[in-house]
Amino acid sequence: MKIFTRSSFKILAASGLCLSLAACVSAPPAPALAAGTGDLGLVVERASGSLQVLNTSRRELLGPIQGLGDLSHASLVYSRDGAYAFVFGRDGALSKVHLPSRSLVGRVQQSGNSIGGAISQDGTLVAAQNYQPGGIRVFDAQTLRLVADIPAEYEPGKLSRVVGLVELPGQRFMYALFDANEIWIADVSGVAAGQPPQLQKFKNVGLQPYDALLTPDGRYYIAGLFGEDGLVKIDLWAAQPKAERILAGYGRGQQPLPVFKMPHLRGWAIAGRQAYLPAIGRHEVLVVDMDSWQELGRIAVAGQPVFVMARPDGRQVWVNFAVPDYNQVQVIDTQSRQVIQTLSPGKAVLHMEFTPRGESVWISSRDDDTVNVFDTRSFARQATLKAAAPSGIFFTSRAQRSGF
Amino acid sequence: MKIFTRSSFKILAASGLCLSLAACVSAPPAPALAAGTGDLGLVVERASGSLQVLNTSRRELLGPIQGLGDLSHASLVYSRDGAYAFVFGRDGALSKVHLPSRSLVGRVQQSGNSIGGAISQDGTLVAAQNYQPGGIRVFDAQTLRLVADIPAEYEPGKLSRVVGLVELPGQRFMYALFDANEIWIADVSGVAAGQPPQLQKFKNVGLQPYDALLTPDGRYYIAGLFGEDGLVKIDLWAAQPKAERILAGYGRGQQPLPVFKMPHLRGWAIAGRQAYLPAIGRHEVLVVDMDSWQELGRIAVAGQPVFVMARPDGRQVWVNFAVPDYNQVQVIDTQSRQVIQTLSPGKAVLHMEFTPRGESVWISSRDDDTVNVFDTRSFARQATLKAAAPSGIFFTSRAQRSGF
Repeated sequence: MKIFTRSSFKILAASGLCLSLAACVSAPPAPALAAGTGDLGLVVERASGSLQVLNTSRRELLGPIQGLGDLSHASLVYSRDGAYAFVFGRDGALSKVHLPSRSLVGRVQQSGNSIGGAISQDGTLVAAQNYQPGGIRVFDAQTLRLVADIPAEYEPGKLSRVVGLVELPGQRFMYALFDANEIWIADVSGVAAGQPPQLQKFKNVGLQPYDALLTPDGRYYIAGLFGEDGLVKIDLWAAQPKAERILAGYGRGQQPLPVFKMPHLRGWAIAGRQAYLPAIGRHEVLVVDMDSWQELGRIAVAGQPVFVMARPDGRQVWVNFAVPDYNQVQVIDTQSRQVIQTLSPGKAVLHMEFTPRGESVWISSRDDDTVNVFDTRSFARQATLKAAAPSGIFFTSRAQRSGF
Repeated sequence: MKIFTRSSFKILAASGLCLSLAACVSAPPAPALAAGTGDLGLVVERASGSLQVLNTSRRELLGPIQGLGDLSHASLVYSRDGAYAFVFGRDGALSKVHLPSRSLVGRVQQSGNSIGGAISQDGTLVAAQNYQPGGIRVFDAQTLRLVADIPAEYEPGKLSRVVGLVELPGQRFMYALFDANEIWIADVSGVAAGQPPQLQKFKNVGLQPYDALLTPDGRYYIAGLFGEDGLVKIDLWAAQPKAERILAGYGRGQQPLPVFKMPHLRGWAIAGRQAYLPAIGRHEVLVVDMDSWQELGRIAVAGQPVFVMARPDGRQVWVNFAVPDYNQVQVIDTQSRQVIQTLSPGKAVLHMEFTPRGESVWISSRDDDTVNVFDTRSFARQATLKAAAPSGIFFTSRAQRSGF
């Protein structure tokens, strides 16, 4: 076995290990060549209405994109090529930004109050879910031209707030109607040809669905219920998909505790055939079997979990917490179901994002104005980056995944 | 519900749906803005020693990169940012190409006979697996400088051909020694600091491992055995990983048939907790339970399967075949385990690649000099593109996944 340093390289070349010396000389890429977008991402700076462009290979923040308005609770999705992001502001604005040039290239004030969105499977349509007026609006991803307006009108004149919007295969979007206790699927595949959206409605799914997730395989749509104790699941692969209640008592526990922050369902961890769920109001992470949808156990953690996120390989689950325990992050090993690490990345941890192959995790600490990067094997801190009150972190690799 | 066409847009604006007319006008991206690399890929043109750069959003071939030498059985991996590919030629050359500029930026004649490679989890190191001389060589991804040479010396003076190379978390590579009946893990995390690679060796794993795969979660390394009837599995999440035989009799069947082409293990489909495997020599796809590693059943197909690949959501498995049935492709529904579609994309189907969210699949037909794109829901042909004797198809989204 041989090991080579830069200095030993000439000997290596002369040793005939390479068939020619020329073949051995290094070939650095010309600096003029365009970089790719696969290792870029964005950090939301909520207080300043800006986004920081980041690079996960160099572990650097590259600079801000400004003028995005109210970014509290903002989320975003990416174009198929990873060069553009579509940002859904709480103020109802839909903004389109270009990462390589760090520029705002489009902005539409599409509603009065919005809470996120999704991009179609083929990347041609962007949908925003709205509180005010309640419904979804669908835009051409290229031009931000409105192509369909679908009010969530569940009774004459009554519009529901929309939550839990995800994209489904074939130009479809699925979402929950908080005020209507319904879940809808809108098929907008015909709108380019001037045909109206086709709606499929699931009624009486449970009281006040407040957020939802789609499993990574796109099979199960699961919504949390604010008005009752449990969740609702729809199996999209069934011959006749229907709404089924699961995990009754999920939120109750023996004695209810005050809930400081409703956990994000979108953060739920799917590891193998188990789902790791944040308990509501309790210092616990639930482990649920995804075949029987029965609870397998609970893991005691340092506070009320907010995000419970699996490393891409499913071997680890990382958890952050609500006030007052929101300066900590804990790591659960999914084989032993034990907490194997407790980290204190900084004050007010709001979000975490894993690099696509899982070697690192980026964690935002709002009240320390920092984003910290950790090695997920050694838990060593790899970088500490300054950002203004950072919240959500989103990498362009999300463009390659379904259910966002 | 409203539906809007371009012509109706002024009315829409005036209708007050947008808060201002300015907010409604479309914002097309400036043409000067750089495109992303997330929807790019490469098609190997084996006869002409060139690669065709492709775009999956526009479903177009953008043009060739030439001068890559012998590309028979060539494979490639991508840089973390998706702008560069590292091409492993059968002639032992390692080439680095830049997709946006369609240029060859580096080339090293690193061995006499090579059969593929891998890139480290963090993207800094590229490893090539070699037949002649037998072993792996590790290169700096930036410069193509050789940083470690690890001969597969299993007895004094005896070098084994290396197959089944994959990357593992933490700057490690795992591979099989065909002539030594061994599987090795090389930890090269120290080479940048001048430390030698650390080797972990699994001996007597079975006769002549000829190819291998890593499951998408990175947990199981599975190698096919040429010299005996069965496979070997190593559980990398076990406290003490060890080599275990599985599926004895996998290749036999009642009456062995002539094998026209050994199937590619790398193509194996993992759908939920089942693995779909090509039978060897038989017109069957095997379904295997990944908990018990027992065979659950066999699905009759149109020929000897070569690639058995799952759509990213695992709902479908697509199969191509060896001579003489290699003009067909069949689609298996993983819920019913039935063949639900048979396609004839063109002559001599060699490879298939799914778009990251699974809406389309690209299929190379070597003897028709075409690459065809199909909608995976409707099975409609979406594009037919001209390429010279196309074989392997590789999208940049592979940079975001482990085990390649």
